[in-house]
Amino acid sequence: MARNKHPEKTVNLILDVAFRLFMEKGYEHTSIQDIIAHLGGLSKGAIYHHFKSKEDILVAVTDRMTAESNQMLAAVRDRSDLSGKERLKTIFKESINRPVQNDIFTVAPDFHNNAKLLFSLLHDTMEEAAPNYILPIIKQGISDGSIETEYPEQLAELILLTANVWMNPMIFDSTEEESYRKFMIFSQMLQGFGLDIVDDEMLERLKELTAIYQKSKR
Amino acid sequence: MARNKHPEKTVNLILDVAFRLFMEKGYEHTSIQDIIAHLGGLSKGAIYHHFKSKEDILVAVTDRMTAESNQMLAAVRDRSDLSGKERLKTIFKESINRPVQNDIFTVAPDFHNNAKLLFSLLHDTMEEAAPNYILPIIKQGISDGSIETEYPEQLAELILLTANVWMNPMIFDSTEEESYRKFMIFSQMLQGFGLDIVDDEMLERLKELTAIYQKSKR
Repeated sequence: MARNKHPEKTVNLILDVAFRLFMEKGYEHTSIQDIIAHLGGLSKGAIYHHFKSKEDILVAVTDRMTAESNQMLAAVRDRSDLSGKERLKTIFKESINRPVQNDIFTVAPDFHNNAKLLFSLLHDTMEEAAPNYILPIIKQGISDGSIETEYPEQLAELILLTANVWMNPMIFDSTEEESYRKFMIFSQMLQGFGLDIVDDEMLERLKELTAIYQKSKR
Repeated sequence: MARNKHPEKTVNLILDVAFRLFMEKGYEHTSIQDIIAHLGGLSKGAIYHHFKSKEDILVAVTDRMTAESNQMLAAVRDRSDLSGKERLKTIFKESINRPVQNDIFTVAPDFHNNAKLLFSLLHDTMEEAAPNYILPIIKQGISDGSIETEYPEQLAELILLTANVWMNPMIFDSTEEESYRKFMIFSQMLQGFGLDIVDDEMLERLKELTAIYQKSKR
């Protein structure tokens, strides 16, 4: 068999096709066979050469989206025209407003059946996003006086654990009403740290994403 | 083959032996074969009749401990001599002080390799302990004026997610120093809800449990 000279092209093709099918049919209702059928003659072996399972493909799709998101996070983190607290607010606003969020909530994987995906999200959140993006902002906020805490690492973790995991309707299968109530407690929690950074626009957007997820569940 | 007339006795024997081995060798270093070897002639088939895997045995061991813990939680929840806030403080104190905690932190399973165990803990925490034990206490606190929140369900979840999951050194592999810092942020978070309920004694106990876990990791 001829060696594939452009493996990254193959991988990207697989991820594009898989993502489109996950969007259309939902993750749970897409099979590896469906993905192969849309790959224009690429063999089953070619897929399994790159991915062991459908779950692996989902993790790779998610990783690609995370890489895009990280560019946004880095851009906000490095804005010198904003205080630490303002950067934190901007990062929340931009994260939640990204159009790709609609896609993620449409794919709506069932995290309870996808341990690898849950661990991947926990890892990205606690070991990548918290130390690399939120922590530097909190440290900046401490030095410019806009954020008060003695434990910036732990505050970064607490904020992202609640925002990305607990408030994620896909993980805890929240209704719109529950999302609203979680958001209100999250807001009260942040205020306890002097962080008055969430607003009604974010709340509306969270409810919108929850509705997309609830509608997409199949 | 003769039917086992006392399946619950067999199950309890398996769990007793497994727990003792997990304590002595650590969960990761105990095999199903080790458990069988200590069951006094019980066959491999008898184990697999009740449990599909070593992970299943661990979940059952944990469930049995959870059932014991729930009796304590219910007793504190139903104490009419304490305000809601005092009951919450008592529940934290008694939970962390239980001697069986030393055993749990000695078994020290690696949650990253045990998806079922992590989901089981998340389920017990968010869908059992939060609504059945913490929520009634918070509601009591609202009615006696010792706790202020409009969203008791979500506050119950937030408190247990941070206490049982984030501050659990087995899940996030925290050092003593990290456990201390998480505890300080947890304390500040609770104060934002008017809950001045954690104290130095709890902090010392948390550090002690973290040290047991760090020592037991093999």
